Amino acid sequence: MMDSSTPLQPGAAIGILGGGQLGRMLALAGARLGFDVHVFDPEPNCPAARVCDRAWSAPWSDLGAVEGFAGKCAAVTFEFENVPLAALKAAAGAAPVRPGARSLELTQDRVTEKDFINGLGIPTAPWAAVDSLEGLKTALEAVGAPAILKTRRFGYDGKGQARLKTADDAARAWDEIGGQPAILEGFAPFTRELSVVAARGLDGRVVAFPLAENIHKGGILRESRAPAEASASLCDRATAIADKIGAGLGHVGVFAVELFDMGADGLWVNEIAPRVHNSGHWTMDACPSDQFEQHMRAVAGWPLGDPAPHSRCTMTNLIGHDVDAWGDLIADPDVRLHLYGKREVRDGRKMGHVNRLTRL
Amino acid sequence: MMDSSTPLQPGAAIGILGGGQLGRMLALAGARLGFDVHVFDPEPNCPAARVCDRAWSAPWSDLGAVEGFAGKCAAVTFEFENVPLAALKAAAGAAPVRPGARSLELTQDRVTEKDFINGLGIPTAPWAAVDSLEGLKTALEAVGAPAILKTRRFGYDGKGQARLKTADDAARAWDEIGGQPAILEGFAPFTRELSVVAARGLDGRVVAFPLAENIHKGGILRESRAPAEASASLCDRATAIADKIGAGLGHVGVFAVELFDMGADGLWVNEIAPRVHNSGHWTMDACPSDQFEQHMRAVAGWPLGDPAPHSRCTMTNLIGHDVDAWGDLIADPDVRLHLYGKREVRDGRKMGHVNRLTRL
Repeated sequence: MMDSSTPLQPGAAIGILGGGQLGRMLALAGARLGFDVHVFDPEPNCPAARVCDRAWSAPWSDLGAVEGFAGKCAAVTFEFENVPLAALKAAAGAAPVRPGARSLELTQDRVTEKDFINGLGIPTAPWAAVDSLEGLKTALEAVGAPAILKTRRFGYDGKGQARLKTADDAARAWDEIGGQPAILEGFAPFTRELSVVAARGLDGRVVAFPLAENIHKGGILRESRAPAEASASLCDRATAIADKIGAGLGHVGVFAVELFDMGADGLWVNEIAPRVHNSGHWTMDACPSDQFEQHMRAVAGWPLGDPAPHSRCTMTNLIGHDVDAWGDLIADPDVRLHLYGKREVRDGRKMGHVNRLTRL
Repeated sequence: MMDSSTPLQPGAAIGILGGGQLGRMLALAGARLGFDVHVFDPEPNCPAARVCDRAWSAPWSDLGAVEGFAGKCAAVTFEFENVPLAALKAAAGAAPVRPGARSLELTQDRVTEKDFINGLGIPTAPWAAVDSLEGLKTALEAVGAPAILKTRRFGYDGKGQARLKTADDAARAWDEIGGQPAILEGFAPFTRELSVVAARGLDGRVVAFPLAENIHKGGILRESRAPAEASASLCDRATAIADKIGAGLGHVGVFAVELFDMGADGLWVNEIAPRVHNSGHWTMDACPSDQFEQHMRAVAGWPLGDPAPHSRCTMTNLIGHDVDAWGDLIADPDVRLHLYGKREVRDGRKMGHVNRLTRL
């Protein structure tokens, strides 16, 4: 294994654990920079498998396969935080893994994640860990209602979540999430949702993209507008949060911090994604070096690129049958269409996104 | 085979004949739009093979293999004009081929190409076909010296060319190009070299990118600056030339026209490339829809994208060991680095390019 601080040579192989749309867009960015990209995913026909040098397919539990894959790579990264920690550790036996296990471990569990954030002195909504229906009732007294109950692990796009309007909803909510270890999060009376997507280089330097303002529906991101209207002091606060979190994780690569704009109460952190993020897709058409290239640069130990946008952008996800409008979208000169090559349209499935540009 | 005017559905397979850097950049653009890309190249480890869904490898002469490849594709295109016509015709038996055989046939031979251009009423440098040393001497009387002798077929990057300062150089020049069927081209006292890269859609609409100013060294493009400083009337003239040539070829896809700026004498055409072109690489970082995406849109029968640049750009090729400077280049925030994943550095080999951006 090479010294971990040596930049990768052009032509080196970078491995990606996970081959969904994020892996696909990472693979395309890596190819532009001259890297060979290997993708590991249990699904042989995943979106990233069709744009990479070599696709590896085996269950996550086949740690020998993961190690074999990593052994062919000069560095390994992951596209999403639900990669099992054991797989990441198996890869780390054969190649530098960036970001490292700490980023994954701290963010895979909503309780350790919130502990970590608050431990950095960064505010969040009030929360409490929940292990039983009894525990949920106690937590409700501390956190108050309305509140939201989320499984500690493996949630995404609003899955594994139940809303509670009053304490009377406790039993239903506990049932709805399948009675798993959970976190109860208090209501954050935010004025809007923002996110900061940033990259941290191997040298510890953090470069943040401008803030995006995000609109969710049914727990899924629908739209991001960037750069968000924001005062210089709000931008500085967001950047300071990204700096602290990046350093605290010892992160290498892109990460996203979802924020609640609490008006006079400043910014609260909602959650951390230790990876490229849907709310950073706008950078693909509006910034010289987009989030995917930034990530691959960081993974390669290369200097980070310029994040300053040349255009204003509204990113809209194409979810399920939204994608059927592709014919109209591609005909609009202000629209940049990105499709993920997924074979089958399903309700709630992210099929692609569009970036609508206006000159800054 | 589908009706040739039906737009391809997202997820359709597009085949590319030729897997060098142009095929690679086409494949990446196709993937962004959600297409599966197949690549056919005699070299199994060509640059495009490492970024596509399926790489096919067989000699060009294996027409059955070419047909088998095309049979898996909803449309087929080519990355360069030296694809044998027989291979293109074999593909056309199994899938729509865009651009068609006419674009290839007319531009593979410098004599038919010049005939075609002049036949459209577009001026070129004086020229004459040459089939023997005797013929060369006659041609020199008509065309004058200095002049340049070029093989009719399979020349690129200054290969298959010999310069003649005076008529005394005839025997040496004839020898230098191996005594092959050739064209003698008279000297064009141009003020500068320009090119227009344009796309023609399936509906016949031509969309041109702004003019680029090109600097060659040793017959190889070194640098393109775009948009070139040019009066509105010069731009109009270039666009009119692109319109005529695109229509004359019945072309579908991107093509480039290399131009000599003759000052008061207007624009002369140097040559046509029926494909994406090195002098259009600047569009990758400066235009919303770059030349590679434009080409894939045209091949798919989709509407063409917006060619208006958001930035000024200087593109510099990384030729041979120029690429060794990658470490400095990637550290420059104004530079966008593109590497082609070629395994071996050779003198004169295009290894990548950089786009240096300034805000328009």
